[in-house]
Amino acid sequence: MNDAIGSSVQLGDLPLRADLRGASPYGAPQLDVEFRLNTNENPYPPPPALVADVTRAVAAAAEDLHRYPDRDAVELRTDLAAYLSTATGVPLTTANLWAANGSNEVLQQILQAFGGPGRTALGFEPSYSMHPIIAAGTRTEWTPTPRRADFTLDAEAAAKVLADRAPHVAFVTSPNNPTGGSIPLAGLRALIEAAPGLVVVDEAYAEFSSQPSAVTLLADYPAKLIVSRTMSKAFAFAGGRLGYLAAAPAMVDALLLVRLPYHLSVLTQAAARAALRHADETLASVHKLAVERDRVMDSLRGLGFTVVPSDANFVLFGQFEDAAATWRAYLDHGVLIRDVGIPGHLRVTIGTPAENDAFLAASKEIR
Amino acid sequence: MNDAIGSSVQLGDLPLRADLRGASPYGAPQLDVEFRLNTNENPYPPPPALVADVTRAVAAAAEDLHRYPDRDAVELRTDLAAYLSTATGVPLTTANLWAANGSNEVLQQILQAFGGPGRTALGFEPSYSMHPIIAAGTRTEWTPTPRRADFTLDAEAAAKVLADRAPHVAFVTSPNNPTGGSIPLAGLRALIEAAPGLVVVDEAYAEFSSQPSAVTLLADYPAKLIVSRTMSKAFAFAGGRLGYLAAAPAMVDALLLVRLPYHLSVLTQAAARAALRHADETLASVHKLAVERDRVMDSLRGLGFTVVPSDANFVLFGQFEDAAATWRAYLDHGVLIRDVGIPGHLRVTIGTPAENDAFLAASKEIR
Repeated sequence: MNDAIGSSVQLGDLPLRADLRGASPYGAPQLDVEFRLNTNENPYPPPPALVADVTRAVAAAAEDLHRYPDRDAVELRTDLAAYLSTATGVPLTTANLWAANGSNEVLQQILQAFGGPGRTALGFEPSYSMHPIIAAGTRTEWTPTPRRADFTLDAEAAAKVLADRAPHVAFVTSPNNPTGGSIPLAGLRALIEAAPGLVVVDEAYAEFSSQPSAVTLLADYPAKLIVSRTMSKAFAFAGGRLGYLAAAPAMVDALLLVRLPYHLSVLTQAAARAALRHADETLASVHKLAVERDRVMDSLRGLGFTVVPSDANFVLFGQFEDAAATWRAYLDHGVLIRDVGIPGHLRVTIGTPAENDAFLAASKEIR
Repeated sequence: MNDAIGSSVQLGDLPLRADLRGASPYGAPQLDVEFRLNTNENPYPPPPALVADVTRAVAAAAEDLHRYPDRDAVELRTDLAAYLSTATGVPLTTANLWAANGSNEVLQQILQAFGGPGRTALGFEPSYSMHPIIAAGTRTEWTPTPRRADFTLDAEAAAKVLADRAPHVAFVTSPNNPTGGSIPLAGLRALIEAAPGLVVVDEAYAEFSSQPSAVTLLADYPAKLIVSRTMSKAFAFAGGRLGYLAAAPAMVDALLLVRLPYHLSVLTQAAARAALRHADETLASVHKLAVERDRVMDSLRGLGFTVVPSDANFVLFGQFEDAAATWRAYLDHGVLIRDVGIPGHLRVTIGTPAENDAFLAASKEIR
């Protein structure tokens, strides 16, 4: 890389925005380790029938690669509406759905339309670390507020914070990443009632949860509520990059004003539709993972760890004097987990039974 | 749509940013017409060998859909470097290349890193209409300056504008869309020399041009120059959504600070690499289109139209008293072209010989 053209110039020589100076790119270390339990991926590969269907769909779509895709991804949004209606019992239509390249892009579009310079966004931390990064990327002022010491959300106190501070956009992650707990519907309702601005309920891990979806509240709060989702986790589609949201049609109209035209390729649209046709098979892994999650939590408790109750496909646990050192100890045992920056804690993604056994065996030695 | 959940709420009821109120979504009308010559697509479908290779690549990638993609798209960037090195004669490496979902996303990332609130961007108009839209989306102040009446760029005057106004980012489109002309290398050099800030040379249509690429200037101006490109046009990959850029490695480092992690799916990465393997076949269409472009220009002149000399795969022509009415007249003849908002002019994309014949036959009647 030293002999690359232009390599005499350093980042510090460039007229980078002042707020980006000294920043590091986001991302978990990607290491070549036997057991990778660090990014909350679904450990089960897509079933062969899904791979075959994705391949057929892409082969057909590839014939028209010289043409731009459907800018508004109408067929995909229709299929997402059908899935989410079945999953939540709420009769959604195409006009209620929007999709982008991962839920990160969905959230970025929300902040481009409703956040931005001179506006504020709020999250209850610790939570998904991309929320403040996307706020920064859209120059939305980030005004975090802490959860309880046990990482649960005090809905009454949180509602008061929303009423007092009146952020333009509030993020509520349920189940919360990286801590794992969900917020009951009554609590969500209290938050939305209290918020003068928008409330984005980030349900990236909803399929793993036993709580009802915030989608059931859309009819009551169409001017305030957006529910974001992803196919990355439960659908085992992290590589396909498909995030989506459910909201009032006018919310979707707002996002059309900021989305980059043709943002979703024909390949993404075709592959995501194929994956949705196999929802029943893929989602069968969700139940297996929930059972494994409960086993891992019980085993960790049995080993004397502190375990934060999880409703998702990962578990936050501790208590460590030096979480970074413990993270390296797991790595030495061939197990890659995640140091999410919460003092004394680490996060492990639920894998296959064999992967979880390897993690638990390492835990026994490290403890 | 009227009975969709939340449809009682209108866009005006939502707390949309003030600068977005009253805006309309970007996009050419997508109409079901026999001859679609409106979005500068390549009219030649991908060759069967390319479709087969994309299909094979996607089938292999789909086995790992449950895993996140390579965040940094290293293999794809390596292949893009090899292609662009061959195309321009400049020895580029992986570290010089960056890619995203269409050049729109590349340009958005550039403005997130180097533009944004309190900063300015400048373009020489008329030019690519997404530049000011992406500036607005990143809250970068857009300060356009006009081209000559014949749509060429006066490099000396333009250099003076850059020196005087000192925009943080200047866009120079060559060949220019929607007018078609290129800027000779000497002119580009003068602009870059004069600019205190960054210069982004948008070469979306470079493969159709006889002018050398601005990539040949990267070694001289590594701290100032970015050259953006796309696979949408010459590569007949508009549906695949792959834009890229060449720049100093430090420029790429800067974009890593603002890119959404995992922005490029495994499908996009695999399909784009497959398409690059067939560059020779695909780019053969470029020569055919250039020959047809020259024929269309000559024929239009022969019919008495004013033709703006084009170095791309489209032609801007006139002069019309009422361009919107003439656009509709073409539509009545089954030919969809583009009203790009330049008084008295319309833009036609070069299609297959049969499509161009249909366009010219309509032109003869409309004239």
